[in-house]
Amino acid sequence: MKLTQLFTKTTKNAPADETARNAQLLIQAGFIHKEMAGVYAYLPLGLRVLENIKTIVREEMNTVGGQELMMTTLQPKDIWEKTDRWDDKKVDNWFKTKLANGTELGVGLTHEEPVVDALSSFVTSYKDFPIYVYQIQNKFRNELRAKSGLLRGREFVMKDMYSLARNQAEHDELYEKAAEAYSRVYDRLGIGAITYRTYADGGIFTEKFSDEYQTISDIGEDTIYVDETKKIAVNKEVYTDENLAKLGLLKDSMVEKRGVEVGNIFPLETKYTDALGVYYTDEQGQRQSIVMGCYGIGVSRLMGVLAEHFSDDKGLVWPDAIAPAMVYIAQLGDEEKVLAEAEELYNQLMSAGIEALYDDRDLRAGQKFGDADLMGIPYRVVVSAKTVESGKHECKKRTESEVHLLDNDGILEFLITK
Amino acid sequence: MKLTQLFTKTTKNAPADETARNAQLLIQAGFIHKEMAGVYAYLPLGLRVLENIKTIVREEMNTVGGQELMMTTLQPKDIWEKTDRWDDKKVDNWFKTKLANGTELGVGLTHEEPVVDALSSFVTSYKDFPIYVYQIQNKFRNELRAKSGLLRGREFVMKDMYSLARNQAEHDELYEKAAEAYSRVYDRLGIGAITYRTYADGGIFTEKFSDEYQTISDIGEDTIYVDETKKIAVNKEVYTDENLAKLGLLKDSMVEKRGVEVGNIFPLETKYTDALGVYYTDEQGQRQSIVMGCYGIGVSRLMGVLAEHFSDDKGLVWPDAIAPAMVYIAQLGDEEKVLAEAEELYNQLMSAGIEALYDDRDLRAGQKFGDADLMGIPYRVVVSAKTVESGKHECKKRTESEVHLLDNDGILEFLITK
Repeated sequence: MKLTQLFTKTTKNAPADETARNAQLLIQAGFIHKEMAGVYAYLPLGLRVLENIKTIVREEMNTVGGQELMMTTLQPKDIWEKTDRWDDKKVDNWFKTKLANGTELGVGLTHEEPVVDALSSFVTSYKDFPIYVYQIQNKFRNELRAKSGLLRGREFVMKDMYSLARNQAEHDELYEKAAEAYSRVYDRLGIGAITYRTYADGGIFTEKFSDEYQTISDIGEDTIYVDETKKIAVNKEVYTDENLAKLGLLKDSMVEKRGVEVGNIFPLETKYTDALGVYYTDEQGQRQSIVMGCYGIGVSRLMGVLAEHFSDDKGLVWPDAIAPAMVYIAQLGDEEKVLAEAEELYNQLMSAGIEALYDDRDLRAGQKFGDADLMGIPYRVVVSAKTVESGKHECKKRTESEVHLLDNDGILEFLITK
Repeated sequence: MKLTQLFTKTTKNAPADETARNAQLLIQAGFIHKEMAGVYAYLPLGLRVLENIKTIVREEMNTVGGQELMMTTLQPKDIWEKTDRWDDKKVDNWFKTKLANGTELGVGLTHEEPVVDALSSFVTSYKDFPIYVYQIQNKFRNELRAKSGLLRGREFVMKDMYSLARNQAEHDELYEKAAEAYSRVYDRLGIGAITYRTYADGGIFTEKFSDEYQTISDIGEDTIYVDETKKIAVNKEVYTDENLAKLGLLKDSMVEKRGVEVGNIFPLETKYTDALGVYYTDEQGQRQSIVMGCYGIGVSRLMGVLAEHFSDDKGLVWPDAIAPAMVYIAQLGDEEKVLAEAEELYNQLMSAGIEALYDDRDLRAGQKFGDADLMGIPYRVVVSAKTVESGKHECKKRTESEVHLLDNDGILEFLITK
C-alpha cells in the first residue's frame, strides 16, 4: 500500500485518556480507534495485524480437526435458562436487548449453550464423535471497568472452540491435543518462551483444574507462580501446598510473576450437554452423556499483549508473522529517478508476495523513519538520490542498527532468506 | 474435507417453520442453523459459501481503492444524536442495550456516523482525498417481521463502504467507480444478467435518485420496471412519467418485475459530515464541506438470493466461484482398492488446490448422490470397484447428465480447464 493512499496518520502524542501502553502505541500508530472505553475499531493496518493473528489461530485449530462455524450474536433466553446462566444475578456481564415485541435477547458473551443446541440434531450416535467446532467472532461483555486497552474490552474478538467426546478418556485426548495446538499458536506469535500453561481453578462443578495460558507481563492482572525449568505455572488462586504436592512441584522452584491470561482451556464435563438434554446412543443402544471441553483464545487481547511485548521507545516492533507489512520503503526526495526506482522496488516486492508499505509522501527523512519505527514494520529500505546513484539501497532491520547496501535482487533475497 | 469428519448431516424434510426456499434448502443441506426468526448461524459448509461471497466483494472493493477497516457493534448515543438518528421515533429498528452504569448504547445497524467520527482526525486537508473505506460485518436490525430466510434478517452480514470527496464532481466520479465495482460483483456471482441497476428514491435530503441493485426473483419484495435492452430499471416508488422523461426511458419499453434489493448506493451529500462538524481545509485555507456516498451490499442476503436462484428440484446448484467445494468424491463400496483410490484422488485434488468433499461414509450410492446434489457441489466423481478396475472414474457436472470416464490426471485436467 502507498502511504499517500492510506487515510490514517501517526500522531506524536499519546492519547490523554489511555494509560495502557498497547492502546497508546496502537492509537498513535493509527492502528485502532477508540469508540468508547473497552470498545475499539480496527483501522486498516490494525485490521491486518488482527487478521494475521486470526490466521495463525485458525490454522492451528484446523490442524487438530477443528470445524469452523459462526454462531450468532443475538441469543434467545430459553437455552440459557436451562443452564441457569440467564439471570443477571448468576452471570453479571450480559448485555441484553429486546425485540420490538418486548422479547428479551442476550448479546453473545460466550457460546456453550448455542453450540450444544445447534449440534444436537447432528450428534446423536457414537459414530458422530469426536468433534471439535470453533469460531472466531466478536464477543460482548458488560465489564464494570474496561481497562488496559485491548486487554479487557467490552467488545472483543475471541476464538472459542468446543470439543464433544463419548467419554472421559476420549475427552482427555481431545483436551491434550488442543493444548498442544495452543502451544503452537503462542510459539508462532513469538511469545512461546514467556507463555506458561498454568494450573487454575476448574470452576464449581469439577474437581479438576482448568488450564490457563499466561503470558508474563507487567500489565498482567494475575499472580502466577512459575517453575521455569519445567515450563509450568500455577495460578495464585490454587497455589496451595496440597495442590503443589498433587502436581509434583516444589515451592522452592516457584517464582512469583505477573501474567496476562491469553487463553484458557476448560473441562466442562457433562454439565452443558446434560442440562440441554443432548445425549448420544452408544453401540448397545444406550443413552449416554456427552463430555465437553471449551478452549478460548482472546484474539484482540493477544494483539494488545503483543503490542506491549514487542515495542521499544520508538514504537511497535511486530514479529514478521503478524506485521501489517514486511517492508517499509522510505523514498527520500522527489527526483524522477528516485520515484521510478522506489515504485519499481515496490512493485517487485508486491509481485513476490512481500507486503510493502511505500512511503511516497512529501515528508522529511526523519518523519518517515519515525513512522516506520512507530508502526513497527520489520524491515526498512531507503531509496534516495544517493542510493539510486550507487544502485544499492539501504536496507535495515527494525531491531538492528546495521545497514545493508543491496540492489533490488539483493533486497528480495535478504527478505526471503531472512 | 472427509464427510465422516464433518459433523453436519443433510435431512430429507424441509423444516416446518420455514417457507422460504433458500432457508429450507440451506437448512436441509446442513449449511445454516436457525437460532431464532431472522437469526441464523453458519455451519461449516455454509460459512465457506459466505466467505467465498465476501472474498469476491472484498476483491472488488479493493480494486477501486477501498481500505478495509472494522468498526464496532457497540455504539455510543452522542454521535447518533448529532444526526437525529438515535430516537426510536426517527429510526425504528435499533437494538439498544445498556452499560452496567445505565448508559444507553446502540447495537450497530449501519455506520455512517461512527465512520465520519473515526475519520475526523485523519481527514483534515484537501490533500487527504479521495477516500473509500469499507467493512464486512454483522449488522443488527430490529425488524418487526423477519422473513424470507436469509433475505430479511435481524442479524446479517453486510459490506458497507463510504466515500469522502472534496466536492460534487469528485463525489460523482467515486460514485460511478463504485457502481462499476458493483456490476463486477454481481457478474462474478453469476447473477449479472438478472441484476439491474435501478433508479430509486434518494431520500428526504436530496433531489437525486439513489441506485439500487435489484435481482429479478419471485421472492422479491420490490416492484420494479425494467428496460431489458438498456439494462436499466426503475423502482415503483419513483416510477412516474416525469422521472421516465428525465431518465430518457419509454413507458412502452418497461416491463414489470419482482426484484430483491442486493445492493444500494446512495448520495449522502454533506448531511452526515456537516452534522458531525467534520470539514476539510482547501488550498486557500478555507473550511469546506465533505461530500459523502455510501455503498451497501447484503452479503448474507446474497447467499439467500443465490440459493433461491441456483437450485433445482434436487437441491442447491452453486456456481464454481462460491461453492463450498468444487468436487464431491462418492466412494462406493468398501473394498481396500476402492478406499485407496478414492483417498489418492482426494489427496491429488487437494494438493492441486481443488477443494474436494470426500464422501467416505458407509452409505448407499443413492444417498451419496442425493447429498452431492442437495449440497450443490459443481462436480461429482464416483470411485467404485468397477471404475477402479477400468482405471477410469465417473465424472459428472451437477448441471449435466453426461458422464465422463476419466483417470485421475484426466479428472484434474477436466476440472482445471472446465
